[in-house]
Parts: sequence; C-alpha cells; structure tokens
Amino acid sequence: MHFASDNWAGAHPKIAESLVKNAGGFVPAYGSSALDKAVEQTFCEIFEREVAVFFVGTGTAANSLALASFARPGGMTFTHREAHLIGDEAGAPEFISAGARLRPVDGPTGRMDLNNLRSALEPVTPGNVFIGQAMGVSITQATEIGTLYELADIAAISALCREHDLPLHMDGARFANALVSLGCSPADMTWRQGVDIVSFGGTKNGCWCAEALVFMDPARAEGFPFLRKRVAQHFSKSRFIAAQFEAYFGEGLWLELAAHANAMSARLAGHIRASKQLRLAWEPRANEVFPVMPKETAAKLREAGAVFHNWRAPHFEGRVAAEGESLARMVTSFATTPDEVDRFGALIA
Amino acid sequence: MHFASDNWAGAHPKIAESLVKNAGGFVPAYGSSALDKAVEQTFCEIFEREVAVFFVGTGTAANSLALASFARPGGMTFTHREAHLIGDEAGAPEFISAGARLRPVDGPTGRMDLNNLRSALEPVTPGNVFIGQAMGVSITQATEIGTLYELADIAAISALCREHDLPLHMDGARFANALVSLGCSPADMTWRQGVDIVSFGGTKNGCWCAEALVFMDPARAEGFPFLRKRVAQHFSKSRFIAAQFEAYFGEGLWLELAAHANAMSARLAGHIRASKQLRLAWEPRANEVFPVMPKETAAKLREAGAVFHNWRAPHFEGRVAAEGESLARMVTSFATTPDEVDRFGALIA
Amino acid sequence: MHFASDNWAGAHPKIAESLVKNAGGFVPAYGSSALDKAVEQTFCEIFEREVAVFFVGTGTAANSLALASFARPGGMTFTHREAHLIGDEAGAPEFISAGARLRPVDGPTGRMDLNNLRSALEPVTPGNVFIGQAMGVSITQATEIGTLYELADIAAISALCREHDLPLHMDGARFANALVSLGCSPADMTWRQGVDIVSFGGTKNGCWCAEALVFMDPARAEGFPFLRKRVAQHFSKSRFIAAQFEAYFGEGLWLELAAHANAMSARLAGHIRASKQLRLAWEPRANEVFPVMPKETAAKLREAGAVFHNWRAPHFEGRVAAEGESLARMVTSFATTPDEVDRFGALIA
Amino acid sequence: MHFASDNWAGAHPKIAESLVKNAGGFVPAYGSSALDKAVEQTFCEIFEREVAVFFVGTGTAANSLALASFARPGGMTFTHREAHLIGDEAGAPEFISAGARLRPVDGPTGRMDLNNLRSALEPVTPGNVFIGQAMGVSITQATEIGTLYELADIAAISALCREHDLPLHMDGARFANALVSLGCSPADMTWRQGVDIVSFGGTKNGCWCAEALVFMDPARAEGFPFLRKRVAQHFSKSRFIAAQFEAYFGEGLWLELAAHANAMSARLAGHIRASKQLRLAWEPRANEVFPVMPKETAAKLREAGAVFHNWRAPHFEGRVAAEGESLARMVTSFATTPDEVDRFGALIA
Repeated sequence: MHFASDNWAGAHPKIAESLVKNAGGFVPAYGSSALDKAVEQTFCEIFEREVAVFFVGTGTAANSLALASFARPGGMTFTHREAHLIGDEAGAPEFISAGARLRPVDGPTGRMDLNNLRSALEPVTPGNVFIGQAMGVSITQATEIGTLYELADIAAISALCREHDLPLHMDGARFANALVSLGCSPADMTWRQGVDIVSFGGTKNGCWCAEALVFMDPARAEGFPFLRKRVAQHFSKSRFIAAQFEAYFGEGLWLELAAHANAMSARLAGHIRASKQLRLAWEPRANEVFPVMPKETAAKLREAGAVFHNWRAPHFEGRVAAEGESLARMVTSFATTPDEVDRFGALIA
Repeated sequence: MHFASDNWAGAHPKIAESLVKNAGGFVPAYGSSALDKAVEQTFCEIFEREVAVFFVGTGTAANSLALASFARPGGMTFTHREAHLIGDEAGAPEFISAGARLRPVDGPTGRMDLNNLRSALEPVTPGNVFIGQAMGVSITQATEIGTLYELADIAAISALCREHDLPLHMDGARFANALVSLGCSPADMTWRQGVDIVSFGGTKNGCWCAEALVFMDPARAEGFPFLRKRVAQHFSKSRFIAAQFEAYFGEGLWLELAAHANAMSARLAGHIRASKQLRLAWEPRANEVFPVMPKETAAKLREAGAVFHNWRAPHFEGRVAAEGESLARMVTSFATTPDEVDRFGALIA
Repeated sequence: MHFASDNWAGAHPKIAESLVKNAGGFVPAYGSSALDKAVEQTFCEIFEREVAVFFVGTGTAANSLALASFARPGGMTFTHREAHLIGDEAGAPEFISAGARLRPVDGPTGRMDLNNLRSALEPVTPGNVFIGQAMGVSITQATEIGTLYELADIAAISALCREHDLPLHMDGARFANALVSLGCSPADMTWRQGVDIVSFGGTKNGCWCAEALVFMDPARAEGFPFLRKRVAQHFSKSRFIAAQFEAYFGEGLWLELAAHANAMSARLAGHIRASKQLRLAWEPRANEVFPVMPKETAAKLREAGAVFHNWRAPHFEGRVAAEGESLARMVTSFATTPDEVDRFGALIA
Repeated sequence: MHFASDNWAGAHPKIAESLVKNAGGFVPAYGSSALDKAVEQTFCEIFEREVAVFFVGTGTAANSLALASFARPGGMTFTHREAHLIGDEAGAPEFISAGARLRPVDGPTGRMDLNNLRSALEPVTPGNVFIGQAMGVSITQATEIGTLYELADIAAISALCREHDLPLHMDGARFANALVSLGCSPADMTWRQGVDIVSFGGTKNGCWCAEALVFMDPARAEGFPFLRKRVAQHFSKSRFIAAQFEAYFGEGLWLELAAHANAMSARLAGHIRASKQLRLAWEPRANEVFPVMPKETAAKLREAGAVFHNWRAPHFEGRVAAEGESLARMVTSFATTPDEVDRFGALIA
C-alpha cells in the first residue's frame, strides 16, 4: 500500500520501452536531434500555439529556471506559502536566480488568495530600492495539497499580474493531474488564462526523468539556453528525455495515467469518507489525499503495511484539531492499483 | 561514418534494458532505494575504499559541483587552458561555485605542465586579498584532446597540490577510456596518486545519462547534498541513474565498451598514419583522434558522409602548419563499428 | 522638526574634524595603517576581549557579510519579520551570502518570541535536503521599532542557538542607543549573553560612514577578508573609517551622542503621552518613537514643518485601530535639539 | 619617499574641509539631497551631456557593478590581461555580476591590441551555448602600468564593440591623470569615442572615498539602483561622497591634483633616465613609473627610505632582462613633493 509519493513509482513500461527503441543510432546531441525537434513540435500542438520548450532534469530545475528567466536584482516572486518552491527546494530557486527572493502569500486550501496577493504586491512600488522589485508570480497546479485553481482563479491572478506587469508562472509538476480533473485543454489551463511560463512535469506521472520548461511566448526565452547551461541542465544525450515524452504523449498516455492516478485518489477518499477513524482535511481534486487521523491510528496503519508521510505542516490551516491527531499526505500514481487502495480501505473501515 | 562525438551515440542495449527491468515497483525516492545503495557500494568496490558517491545529470554538473565542494570566496581552480571546464561549460563552474574562477595553465598535448602549474600557484600567496585564494586543481583524464596523464604525472601534480594544501579533482568524463588505455585500476588512477574527487562519467561510454561525483574521502562530502540540491541536480527517481550504472558495471561492460571505443580510435589512427593527405596532430591514447588535413580534403570527406567537427583551437600548440589546413576532432564510441572506420580509411587512402 | 531618520543628520563636528586631522601623510592602505590598528585595538578594549574587526561601508554590508560568514548551501537565517535584513535591504543579504534565505519569525514589539523561534527551527532537522539548513539567528538591538531585547532575552535566544549549534548575530545599527538605554557594557550586551557577531554601526549615531563587523571569536573570521573583498567593501583609504571611529570612541563621544538621541526620543514620547490627538503605539526604549494619529493630524503636522515617515507596516501588531489612522516613525539623533522636539510638542498639545 | 601607491596618501585638505562644511543640518538620505543632485548635475556638465551617476564606495565596486549592469548568463567581458579587474579584485567582478567571466586579452604596454581583441571575440559566436556569450569590453584609462590609450585607440575598440553589439566600459580609477595627460575633455575621452560606462575614480586623486559609476546613456542604468543595493553600496549619508566631489570639481581641483601627480611622475622618470643603475621599463604617461633595477639596488633604495612595491608581473612583456633584476612600480599622487622625488633622484644618481 504505497502512498508515500508519486515519485516512488518507477516508469511506465511504455516510457521505458521508448528508451530501448530510441537507444540505437547516431544523432546530434544537446537537443538538436530529429526526435528532440519532433517532441518540441508536439508541445506546440498540445498547447495550440508556437511555444519554446526546454528539457531539464528535475522539477526544481524547471521552477528555478523559470524564476531565473524573469529575475531582476532585488527581485521577488510571489507564491503560496506552502508552494514547493518555498518549502521543498532548499534554496535552489534563490540560488539559480542569483539571489532573488520568494515572498509567501497565504490563502485557503493551498491557493493564493487574490486579495492577499494584491496586499502583498501593494508595498512593492516601482523604484523602492529598500523593499526590492516584484518580478513574478507563481502558482502550483495542482497545488501542493492536491487542490486546484479553477480557470477563473487563474484568470483573476493573471489579470492582477498584468496590472503590475509581472509574468505568471505555473508549477505544473502535476500538470496532467490538474488537467484531467478540470477536463479542459492545456491551452485553456495556461495561456488562455494568462499563464506565461509552465514547468511541465512528466516524472511524477510515469516518466523516469522528463521535465520541460515551456514559454508560451518564445520571445520570453531569449537567452534562456545560457541560463539552462549555467546550471548544468543541458543534457548531451537529450533524446533520452525526448524519447520519454514521445511515449508520454503517444496515444494520450499522459492523460490516461493522470486519470488513473486521480481515480485512485478519489477511491481512496471514498474509503476515508466512509471511515469513522479518519476524515479528509479537504476535498482532493487531483492525486493527493490528506486525511486527519489519530496518531495511534497512523501508527497502526503503518504497521499494517501502509506507506505514507506526515504532511510537513501539521497545523496547516487549522485542519488538525486535537493534540493527538496527525495530518497525512497520501499520493497515488499511475502505478497505484485499486486493490491496494481497497486493502487500505479495509484497514480503516 | 559518425565521429562527431561520443554523445551522438545513444545508449548501449544493456543500459536501456536495465531501465526496463527496474521500471516497476515502489521504492524510496531521492537516492535512498536499495538499488541506489547497491550501486554506491559497487563504487566503493571499484575504488577499493569507502567513497561518497552522488549521482548527477551532466558532466558539467559533476565538474561544477566538484569545484563548489571546495570553493572559497575569491577562489581559483587551476586547470589546463583547453579543459572542458574552461572552454565548454559556459560559465557553469563559475556560477555553481558562486563566482569562483578558473585559472588556465598551459602544457603540451593537453596536459598541464608541472612547472607552469607551479608558476601559476606561486603568486597566489595565502592571505593575498587582491589576487584571491587558490582553492583546487583539476585535471582531465583522458584529456580534451585524447591524451593521458601517466600515473607519475598525476602523482607529481598531487604532490604539488599537497604542498599548497589544495584538493585535486579529476574530470573523468572519459574515465573508462583512460583506465583501459593505462591498464591500471581505478584506485591506481585516482587516490593512490592523490586524486581527491572524481567526476565519473558514464554518459559518453554507453549510458543515457549517468554521471557521478565521487569523493575519495567521504569527509570531503559533508554538506554536499545541499550543494547538489542548490543546483537542482537531486533526482527524485534516482534509481534511473542507478539502474544505468548497475548495467554499466555488470560483467565489466564499462571496460569492454571503453576498450572498444579506444580500439576504434587506434584503428582510425592507423588509417590516418597510412594516409598521405592527413597526419595526426598528436598520438591518440583514448577515443579521440585529431587529424590535420587540407581544408579541401575535410570538405570532400564530409561530402562523402564522414561526420566530424573542427577542433575549436585550430592553431592549438602550433600543430596546424599551413593556412589551408584544418584540425579535426574525431571521436569514437561504444557504437562505432570497424566497418565505418574502414570506410573512412578507404576515403583517405 | 526633523524626525525622518537618524541618517538625515550629517556628521558630528568632532567626526568631521578627525577626518581633517588625519588627512595628511602617507600610510599603508587597505586597513594596515597604525590608525586602523589602533582603532581595532580600541574595539578589543571596548568589548573586553580579543575581537576581529572589519570596517565596511554600510549597515547592509555589515549585516549581509555577517550572514555570508556563516552561510551554508540551502541555508536559512532566522530573524524577526520586521528586521531590516528582511524589509529594507532588497535582497542584498541573500545575494551576498550566495543565495541563503531569511526565515521570518514573529514576536511582539519587534522582538522574536523565543517559542516562535523554537517552532521555526524545529522542522529544519539536520540533513533535511528539501527544507535546507539552519545557518544562524539574527537579532536587532535596538529593534527596528525602537524597543530592546533585555539581556536575559538575548541569553535565552543564544541558549537556543547553542542547542542547534547556530551562531547568533546582532544587527547593531543602533548599538549605542541600546547600550546606553540598558546601561550595561558592550561585553554584557553581546558575548556575555552569547552573541557571536555584531554589526556595529556608527553612521546613524554621528559618523559619516563608519560601520564595522565584529567577530567575538576571531576564529570565526577566518577567510573573511576574501568575503569582504568579494563584495567590494575593502576600502583603500581605510583610515577614513578609522579616523571616524577614533573620534567616535574618544572621550566617550559615542555614548554621549546616543544618550542625547535617546533623551530626545523620551522627550518626544512625553509630549505624545500628554497629547490627546496622538498615542504611542508602544513604549520607546531607544531613539525611535512610533505614534498613532489620525491621518488628518499627520497631514497637518507635516504642513506645519514636521518631517517624518509613515511606518512601512501600518497594521503592525494590530496597533493601528481605526481606518483613518496612520502609524508614524519618528527618529531622533545626535543632532536633534530639545527646541525642535518642544516645537513639535506644542503642535500636538 | 612614498611611492607605494596613490592610495597611501590621505585626502586633500579641501576635500576634508568640504566634509566639515557639509556636516551640519538635516537632508534626505540615500542620494536624494540637494547636494547629491547638484553633484550629479556637475557630472552632466563635465561630460557635456545628460548622464546617469551613481556613487559607490570603491573602485572595485564601480568596476564590478559596471559589469553587472550588462551581465548575461554565461557572459564574458574582454579586458587586458593585466587589468585591475582580473588581477586585483579577487573575484569581486565575477561574484557581483553573478558568475560572469573575464577573458584576458594581450597587448603591448598594458593596452589591448585591437587584433587580439578581434581574435578573442571571433569564436564567441551568438548562440554558442558552450563557450558562452560576449557581454562587454573594458579598458583601463590610464592603464594599470601608467600608459594611455590614445583617443583613436579608444575609437577603434569601440567600433569593434559596435560590430559585436557590446558596451564599452572604461575603468577610470585614474581618469583625471589620463585626462590631463591627453589634454582633452572628459567627453572627448569617453562618449565621443564610443565609451558607454565609466568608473570615475576620485579616491586615488585626493578624495577619501569617492567613486562614481557614470552611464553615458541613462537608459543603460535602468534597474541599476537595485544592482547597487544588492551589493550594499547604497550609502545612507550619501552626501559624504557628494561633499567630496563638490570640492573635487570646485575650481578645477581635480585637474590640478592630477596634473601635479603626473608632473611628479615625469620628474621621477627624468631622474631614472639620468641614472645608470635604473632604466624605465616603458614611458610613463600618467602618475606611475616602472623602473627596472638590480635587486640589490632595490634593497638599498628601500633601506634608504624609499617605499615602493615590486610589480606583480616581473616578467611582464619581457621587460626585465636579467635574473638579478626586479621591476618596481612607483606611484605619485597629489601629495608627492618635488623634494621627495629629488631625494630619490639623488639616491640613484
């Protein structure tokens, strides 16, 4: 019963097979092969526009380089207090953007509140050399706690970004999970709502190691190859990423895997709703479920073979009432089976 | 006839198959899986000592992080003028080590001359706050131009490093090629001669994407995980690198592939020696061959289907005499066939 | 009626005269003159121990370099949310420490609450490569809002620092004002309570440009000259700073000026207490006074010639009740006269 | 007999007096006082155009921030191998420009040779992500070895810069010395020849601490205040720099002091020419003289009270023939007296 993280799963067989299929032959290195170019073209089709695509090795690289692409001296990026950028990347965003800062913004269920964002931006007036410069806004879709921004939410945030002349970045480590949950197109979830740059994650959804930074307007990517090189994220045998994405996008595999992971979370949530011992801290929308449970129960479940982490913010949004309770994060993936979900369900019934 | 670079080859079938074999099942992420640990143990066995091993995604990452691990403010690393660190990494070493500098040292056939290194170190006296601090020395084995440091050369450089209390780094992007050419053990080529840190490359020798930074003394790696995280080189599904190394080291595949690549270079060099149109700029010792030829000949060979780059330093070490000549770099790999070498041989006969 | 900031005052005549007195003659540059050495010795006497002293040009430089001196990759320094480091230095601390972060800690009247600090440190467990490393704690004495840490407060914080093996930094931009208010010795206010590094400010208290970074244990300053040089804070005619400090420390001038500034704030606070239109947001302890007043009153006072800024955090700690009120910061200095304080008092009577 | 450096001299009495004169009264901090503004206006008059002026504390800050103002990821600035930027600033330029590199260019008598510069720029083709990006060119006027670029030299270099779309920076630590030697106007020596940014030094020529970065086109300075703040070079009591410049420019003091320093060097050179024991390594054009002498002679002169340093590059340009010789650097300043020059002359007669 593996719910520790979607990166505990390996790679989907079709992804791995694609690496076998593409292993032979000589092709130009560093992203200039026909396969690399074909995958870039696929991104354009998926986003229904000419986009600039750069493969990188980790989600942290994608996020940090997104920030670096719009970094300014004394700059700040506004993002939710619980964002991966702030809580899990150990200063990589700050380092890779040469010292730019992250300004936390609060909001319920893991989403920045528009008014809070407005208030946070307010004192950062242009030319205020003491406080520094606003340089961008970042949202996570799906959020760190498995919730979603609705399309209208994104549009409202991007409208505020436009007022302040700031780019809007989307951390899409779980892009596909959000997409199938909303049932919209990639274009709808991004540039049509004003998103400028997307960290497009494939790793958590069945790839080995496939992340891409996607600039909706290629003009924003001018000089970006040097930024990527500067942090050693320019892969020589770049086709090993391209080959993963080829299989990932082929026959809608990516959407299928995300839909499966989401369904497993929904199934898991159903068991939790039905349980008397556990309760949902909030409603899951993607592939993460956050149950509150007595610490004793958590211990027993682990003894029984359930693998899951406590969430880092046990008092997050006041969802954990009693002293003796803990807040767990349970993540499903393409590899989660209904059987293991149901076995967990049986344990908490 | 593909001699552009060893990174134009894909992955050896056994490497790719290992990724298929290891794709299933749930295992802890971020380098803590049993497979990760087993591969780390293999590194210890190969180096005949307890070493600290960190997987990274690119050779530039390995090299730059090696420098970062011993970086000091105002620091300088001494390396050959033609080193990859200086010529091909576009400032990543400087950025990743937070502004540390590279000080070029000259020497014939791509190897730092000991006296030149001594002279370069001389003015950098401790406490000289204007010139800055010496922080390390880096050698490339095999060198950028396919030559080798003999074991005694390495020992002499490391002795000088000890005098100045400096760590010695080895850029081993083509570690295996050097090793089989010298016919010694990894321990002999590294710590027994005083090497402290090795960028251990697998990518150029048949892996997709497998590089490791190896600290001969684990104490040197204290705090290193944070340095690696800081540049977003901490892979979640780390076993995808481990799986490659597992196959790489299994049944001596790595040495076999390197021996093949070297043999192909030797075969290529034989054809060049026999040719009246080309001559060797210097004797190849690993898997790179640098022929001098009339520019016209180079053009004809390319038309005939030979793929190779001009070397970036056409006047390198005065090897290219006449105005109308060019200096080519030809690289062989695990995937090079005797047939394509001989077809090239036939063109220049 | 100048209450905008203590840096709107120029230099005390004795400071300026010292620059005249020391202008002649040839002496070694870059901090090695007899005068530089003599002033360093004075610092040792003042702190009653062997300290390492480095002159820098700005308080931001002193603070940022203090952080750089104990920076770690992925590192975080814990400081009060309203600290100058966080709110007024536009990312210089982050940049100068190569990307280290500041973690805000709350606490009433501008002082970190010990329990909050403990809670903030708790999740930052050693080796947690996602959250990063704790690297230090910084307190401001006097605080940004003119309050003070009592000696016992400092001792309690430093005890917590020791538990976590973290250095304790004191931003002493208004060191002298705190000192005379507490009526203790520099040693008492710093190392005797466990403070490791002090940003010792002279500029706000009557110097032109005289700041020093003081390491209570000189061993902590190893390699520091290179850090200072790296941000171009190594002054050639360093004696121009030394000359200011010579006059500053001569005949207790520094304490006299600070006592005067504090007395002017106390006098100002007296007028405010007596006023029906204004009230003190909190009790002033040094040379800053924060009155709450109707916005209309603020406008009238400015029209009448009073110069003061609104405080950046108008809703700071809930001190500003009504919608129509504003929170002002009024700063007195060595140059403030009782007359101008009383003229202001007359306006609000 | 003080010839160690022009920064061993203190401040000219008029500079020091200006600090006394301007010490009183309350004025806005951080560069917004009337005096700051007036001095900025003086800069515009001196350069005969609208320029953007930023005060900083050291020449290293001015130079490094100039580079930061045009930095690009993977960027390189081309400058003479003996430039202060490369040899004396211990990595500050690299750090402050977030990892940008310096590419040394050779040329006789301390000046970049145009053809060498052209050759150095040639391989740095746009988009070459391995070698990195050219980002600027820097010349030193007067050079580190007391020679000068003629106006035509500067024009030729700037023409090459235009071809490559690169800004041209002038390190003017000894700007005034060069100016009076060439007998031209500041505009002639800078923007009329295509110079874009000037590090304008006052410190070596009689100020305590007064440096300015001058952008010939204010549009180039957009965002610069944040770059300056980022390295803690934004002085609160900024008028202490303005007050120095006010006196410096008043009644042509700056030109008078530079002319004096140059005359003292010429007088010193005369003595050396007449000597049988010393010879000039090259002809001095500003306020530095580089004599070659037997090591024994150097020792005797020092015993007799002459203070001077050996030049860091004893074999510089092959000027030092014999083994037993050393190359000295002797610097004159506003404070050098004919008497001490002549006393030195008597020693070598």
